[in-house]
Amino acid sequence: MSSNYRNFRNSVPWLIFFLEAVFIILFCFLYSDDGVSGSNISYPAFQDVSHMVIFGLGFFLAFLKRYKFSSTGFNLLLIVLGVQWSVLMEGLLFFLFQNEKEDDLKSITKATVSMTTVVISSAAVLGKANPIQLIVMTIVEIAAFHLSRWINKMYLKIGDSVGMMHVHLFGAYFGLAVSPFFSEPSPNSEKNASTPESDLLSMLGTLFLWVFWPSFNSVLAVEEEKNTIIYNTYFALAVSAVTAFALSVLTTKDGKLRMKHIHSATLAGGVTVGYAAHSIWYPSIAMILGLLASVITVLGSHHLQRCLNSVLKIHDASGIHFTFGLPGVLGAIAHVILFVVKNWTDLRSQRYLIMIEIGTFCLTISVALISGFITGCILNLKLLKTIPVSKYCEDQFYWEFPHLAVGF
Amino acid sequence: MSSNYRNFRNSVPWLIFFLEAVFIILFCFLYSDDGVSGSNISYPAFQDVSHMVIFGLGFFLAFLKRYKFSSTGFNLLLIVLGVQWSVLMEGLLFFLFQNEKEDDLKSITKATVSMTTVVISSAAVLGKANPIQLIVMTIVEIAAFHLSRWINKMYLKIGDSVGMMHVHLFGAYFGLAVSPFFSEPSPNSEKNASTPESDLLSMLGTLFLWVFWPSFNSVLAVEEEKNTIIYNTYFALAVSAVTAFALSVLTTKDGKLRMKHIHSATLAGGVTVGYAAHSIWYPSIAMILGLLASVITVLGSHHLQRCLNSVLKIHDASGIHFTFGLPGVLGAIAHVILFVVKNWTDLRSQRYLIMIEIGTFCLTISVALISGFITGCILNLKLLKTIPVSKYCEDQFYWEFPHLAVGF
Amino acid sequence: MSSNYRNFRNSVPWLIFFLEAVFIILFCFLYSDDGVSGSNISYPAFQDVSHMVIFGLGFFLAFLKRYKFSSTGFNLLLIVLGVQWSVLMEGLLFFLFQNEKEDDLKSITKATVSMTTVVISSAAVLGKANPIQLIVMTIVEIAAFHLSRWINKMYLKIGDSVGMMHVHLFGAYFGLAVSPFFSEPSPNSEKNASTPESDLLSMLGTLFLWVFWPSFNSVLAVEEEKNTIIYNTYFALAVSAVTAFALSVLTTKDGKLRMKHIHSATLAGGVTVGYAAHSIWYPSIAMILGLLASVITVLGSHHLQRCLNSVLKIHDASGIHFTFGLPGVLGAIAHVILFVVKNWTDLRSQRYLIMIEIGTFCLTISVALISGFITGCILNLKLLKTIPVSKYCEDQFYWEFPHLAVGF
Repeated sequence: MSSNYRNFRNSVPWLIFFLEAVFIILFCFLYSDDGVSGSNISYPAFQDVSHMVIFGLGFFLAFLKRYKFSSTGFNLLLIVLGVQWSVLMEGLLFFLFQNEKEDDLKSITKATVSMTTVVISSAAVLGKANPIQLIVMTIVEIAAFHLSRWINKMYLKIGDSVGMMHVHLFGAYFGLAVSPFFSEPSPNSEKNASTPESDLLSMLGTLFLWVFWPSFNSVLAVEEEKNTIIYNTYFALAVSAVTAFALSVLTTKDGKLRMKHIHSATLAGGVTVGYAAHSIWYPSIAMILGLLASVITVLGSHHLQRCLNSVLKIHDASGIHFTFGLPGVLGAIAHVILFVVKNWTDLRSQRYLIMIEIGTFCLTISVALISGFITGCILNLKLLKTIPVSKYCEDQFYWEFPHLAVGF
Repeated sequence: MSSNYRNFRNSVPWLIFFLEAVFIILFCFLYSDDGVSGSNISYPAFQDVSHMVIFGLGFFLAFLKRYKFSSTGFNLLLIVLGVQWSVLMEGLLFFLFQNEKEDDLKSITKATVSMTTVVISSAAVLGKANPIQLIVMTIVEIAAFHLSRWINKMYLKIGDSVGMMHVHLFGAYFGLAVSPFFSEPSPNSEKNASTPESDLLSMLGTLFLWVFWPSFNSVLAVEEEKNTIIYNTYFALAVSAVTAFALSVLTTKDGKLRMKHIHSATLAGGVTVGYAAHSIWYPSIAMILGLLASVITVLGSHHLQRCLNSVLKIHDASGIHFTFGLPGVLGAIAHVILFVVKNWTDLRSQRYLIMIEIGTFCLTISVALISGFITGCILNLKLLKTIPVSKYCEDQFYWEFPHLAVGF
Repeated sequence: MSSNYRNFRNSVPWLIFFLEAVFIILFCFLYSDDGVSGSNISYPAFQDVSHMVIFGLGFFLAFLKRYKFSSTGFNLLLIVLGVQWSVLMEGLLFFLFQNEKEDDLKSITKATVSMTTVVISSAAVLGKANPIQLIVMTIVEIAAFHLSRWINKMYLKIGDSVGMMHVHLFGAYFGLAVSPFFSEPSPNSEKNASTPESDLLSMLGTLFLWVFWPSFNSVLAVEEEKNTIIYNTYFALAVSAVTAFALSVLTTKDGKLRMKHIHSATLAGGVTVGYAAHSIWYPSIAMILGLLASVITVLGSHHLQRCLNSVLKIHDASGIHFTFGLPGVLGAIAHVILFVVKNWTDLRSQRYLIMIEIGTFCLTISVALISGFITGCILNLKLLKTIPVSKYCEDQFYWEFPHLAVGF
């Protein structure tokens, strides 16, 4: 154990310093304040997204009994590192392929939205990956996501604001591909359980995410579509929250509510309408999507998880497959169906566009799975010292607990 | 007990699914995205209100020892159901009586503000009503509130933004009328007590509400009045917070502060200036109103509560009468007095308007009391299975507690 | 002890009522709603700042085991009192020396920003000063800060938005000058320790502050500079958060992370770029400043604190010197260096301006230290009854704990 500590001590700070040095030097070359003052991103909307990612997701993941410091702390670390890296990647892609440059606020906003992928993936290995593995994962995943986005944009001509909404799909399937490389915790370990307090903290994060989700879906959209997106996202979220309560009672023994269902299913509607929100012309369609999203989240977590777990050896620590993955797939399918219905009279000439729509989602999922698998292999290298199963989900492995000394 | 569980299991989900089906069908007929993109509600202001209601009020009510899951969870459930219902009611009223339609964001904002009535009323029976009763209450109360608002608008010509500010009054007196139908918990039960942790959670909610209150009072106002309303609300809140500390020390034994006083009295100023904020021409008037609001809240909760409790058999579980009811009445009186002072020279010709002002408040309170009484009778029906007193304020009656199994 | 209670009971409310009476009367003379409706402060930005100060700083300081009610409660009390006083001071200064008046929203925003000084100073004596002492300190400190700001503006011609950013420096050195007047708690007392729960609450506050910091630095700036300030502040904060994690691992035994380092060092970058953010022309400069800020915060708290403590008898209860003081000094130095580099070719003619820049920081620190020392003497008067060391950091000394009675 002490050698692990030493190893941790030796490598984390230097890896961080090395990355920061690289980032600062690259920023020096790529960015300067050239007096662009206006922005087509509203600052309050950017801040909602920043709040969601830093605060909302941090506490959303704080449901493990002894892993609250790490859930909130490592979440902050990954995001601040990843946002810098993501801004740079964006800058490099622009530098290499285009001339026009985006304004400052827009580039941070896009980077923050991109970071959702990493947070979702890291949730799949919550409590099992050490900070070095998480940092390496952040670097690789952001690069892979930008690659996937860039292919979508260059070859399939997908608009940027739609392409960014693939974050949930990408994050979930990347995380699922990484997770089998981490050994499973012993099932009767009490560490990966929650307490009423930690469940309430997670509820706090969930409510934050719920309130800010319309901002997330609309922040990168064009001005005219914003109100429609906000309206549709709100109703999808509302219906999925309502449905979550109903289904939770139906699926549990004794007809009680399960907090985990509420946490994940209330948000499912927001994920599902992510791509399609601007093209939904009746709020009732958004409501039906919210209902379906909630259904697959609760039923999936109930029936499918055990089966996936035993067959594919995937241990999805936070249920991200059902919270973000399947609702994302549902959203993708809904997007295509809505497109077909809208262009029903002229379907033959639109066939090409429909293929493109389907292709872009398949591409995103494929890139996520492949790059996730490769990342999993890298993270399993002895160099990165995977932590022993007995130390999973344990704050004290990473954080000082002076509280114990004073006899708390 | 187990039959109660089964009953709960059988009815809650189907009631929810039934309501959702009705809502989706009605939405299908009443609403379509007809390309109205602009809105005279600012999105950040809407979100402040949404945040207040979902997050702020949820945690504000989380002060009971063993009822934190239900306080935050059921609050979310009621609001997401109620907002849909409220948007529909608004749509129906417009459909039946008028032609002009409001934009999407405004309709959700108005619905969210309306839902404050339900949250306040449900606080009066906090821990005593089961989810079915709460859902029925939501449906009836929103309908009654829209009725009252509609009468005010049609016959008394009260502007909509002023009419919406009756939410506190309506919610408080509706809740008071409902509460005698629920039997009182045994006084020496430890369940309806708070812990330092739950009091702190409630403080968290209170601070949220405090910060966002100026948004609540100004969100529906016309653009020119917004700054005045924000300014007056801020100072009324500031003075009532200061006064809360002073009075709490004066009224308790040993001169200590009582957390409950701080929770309710800091917000009283915001409730009081709700109607009048746009017509206050000196900030010092708002400050005096804030001071008076805090005084009646603290003194009321100290002296009047016990007396009301024993005489009228009203057990007001969260002290809403003193937090929202009396400050609302004070605001109503202040509104009339300010009107009289302003039109002092021309009082005779304005007499009619003064009568209208008084009439509108009486109407709101009457509709609230009558509809509350009827709702109380409905909620007491055997069909809705009131829960036994021994199960009051008990999360475990509704929620799974796997934490207990792992020996937490 | 009981005489202390009685004393507390007798004086706090009357002091508060006296101040409120004075405030209301002064407001009556100085302010009226003269129909200025527009404002050049955006309301969402004001609210971010209000949220930071009321909620963020309140919970940021809630890290003491048994002082969470007081940390959040007294913070609210001081701010609501102080904002009124600060608005009045501003009004008096305008009344005496100038004719033009500021709009309502701007005056509350400036008052809220000014109150940061008091919160920082009160953190230096957290748990040691009683409410009366804190109120007296608020009154004196706000007056002293306005004096210092007024001298800066009148004689050194420093712009108001820059002058306001001296709050961190002023607050930190005022607090340090006050702190030696309070006796030190016994070192092996368990009361001034934190628990994992209170550390997490403080993390909650920290994340809030982190997200809203760009608003704080940009709220008073002119429109054209806002985006630059937001961008630079964001990157400074991001790098200082990253560095905090690296340095915490390097400086602690066993290479573990210390929560206290994360709390203070993640915010250091925001403090440092406070003055200079508008004049930084490469984001990489902001990033380097963020890195340096984090370094001096962590190393300072590690090496310097013990030495300062033993030599100067300064017991800095919340480490404000390292969180706000030193990063502020670093920011001041950076501001001057950046100015020199920018005007390198024309340095001789700019010599006067450089002296002014240096002078203004020295002035702020001097006024802070002197007025802090005087305040410390006043607070030590027997009239204000300093509380005994055995009652330090004890919520139960000020708040009712009915929870204990029910056998919690």
